[in-house]
Amino acid sequence: MTLIVAIDRSNTTDGRDVIEVLEKICNMVAGVKLGMPLLLKHDLNLLLNIRKICNNNIILDLKLADIGDIMVETAELFKNYADSIIAHSFIGKKDGIDKLKNFLDKNNMKLILVGSMSHMGSEEIYDKEINNIINIIKDVNPWGVVLPATRPEIIRTFRSKIGNEIKILSPGIGYQGAKPGTALCYGADYEIVGRSIMNAPDPKEATKVIIYEQKRGMYECKR
Amino acid sequence: MTLIVAIDRSNTTDGRDVIEVLEKICNMVAGVKLGMPLLLKHDLNLLLNIRKICNNNIILDLKLADIGDIMVETAELFKNYADSIIAHSFIGKKDGIDKLKNFLDKNNMKLILVGSMSHMGSEEIYDKEINNIINIIKDVNPWGVVLPATRPEIIRTFRSKIGNEIKILSPGIGYQGAKPGTALCYGADYEIVGRSIMNAPDPKEATKVIIYEQKRGMYECKR
Repeated sequence: MTLIVAIDRSNTTDGRDVIEVLEKICNMVAGVKLGMPLLLKHDLNLLLNIRKICNNNIILDLKLADIGDIMVETAELFKNYADSIIAHSFIGKKDGIDKLKNFLDKNNMKLILVGSMSHMGSEEIYDKEINNIINIIKDVNPWGVVLPATRPEIIRTFRSKIGNEIKILSPGIGYQGAKPGTALCYGADYEIVGRSIMNAPDPKEATKVIIYEQKRGMYECKR
Repeated sequence: MTLIVAIDRSNTTDGRDVIEVLEKICNMVAGVKLGMPLLLKHDLNLLLNIRKICNNNIILDLKLADIGDIMVETAELFKNYADSIIAHSFIGKKDGIDKLKNFLDKNNMKLILVGSMSHMGSEEIYDKEINNIINIIKDVNPWGVVLPATRPEIIRTFRSKIGNEIKILSPGIGYQGAKPGTALCYGADYEIVGRSIMNAPDPKEATKVIIYEQKRGMYECKR
């Protein structure tokens, strides 16, 4: 499976709408990425309920970018409720990512580092440090890296330098403009799709269509 | 007043300990900075209760670092509950910080941007982009900037380039190694102190001592 669904918010206070969508599509996706607005608005019961119906890779997209101690305190809250946590590579390793990585390793959780972002602003500073960021990622050796489908050449660059062990997860498909299959074609392992599924009148049908489009994109892909 | 208290977590489920400390020190501080672990663990009632006893600048230290749409969705949750939100300058302006700034302006909230961080890892990537970051900060014109007391020469650099209108808030005092008064001496408007107050046997007394030390530091300061 090459699709991860992103859920950034809920329209109900108990998250029932999220659960209802996941019940329908869980068996078609490799993971569920939960955004900060959703996590701030709900308590841990939502995560428990998600786990009951979806025993996939539950990824907390907090985009942690604080000093190590604070990131560990945040991760501590979720240690029995999720599989993976996303943090930013740009904060650096020493007393930053290294502390988070140690904590996650001890608790059998996966670290996913942002390597570049899908919006235009990523080119202003983030992408200027691409070589330093690649070095930090190779040094920290996280489970995965987040790279944008909106600028897929970045995926190819990272893949050529970080090898094939580290997973590449790619957002920016759909509402943000990239076509399904694009990131896979450039070397990503997973494409992350949020609004095109969650805002669809029929999320299950939308998921099927995206998976079909991913396959077509891969078929057309000439690396 | 030149002291902002940082509260990153609560030891009680209802946040009673946080309220008890704030009741004692609220009138001595210019603001209250609330960390992500605290905000994730508690619902908005904690913020309502803090407001009741502490009508100061309530700063949400979420260190937002996502695409603009997601940061706006996060800020939306808090629009009637807090005064300021901290985000990272590193993510860039276009479709990032610009969207958050527009939203906060419309809702009479203050944007505070991280310009550099207090841990060692900040030197690995963040501080290499200091000139680009200063340009983005001048362009976005936030209410405040976060700069580390642990490397105070950065405060002087920013102050000389961003002028005197934008406030400088400086963490890293106490547990992280910098002495009270250091950041003020180098041009900060506020020093942020967390654990030295929150973990003290008598937080009120600890706050008084830090304010005294700030004054002494400023007195000894030769710019």
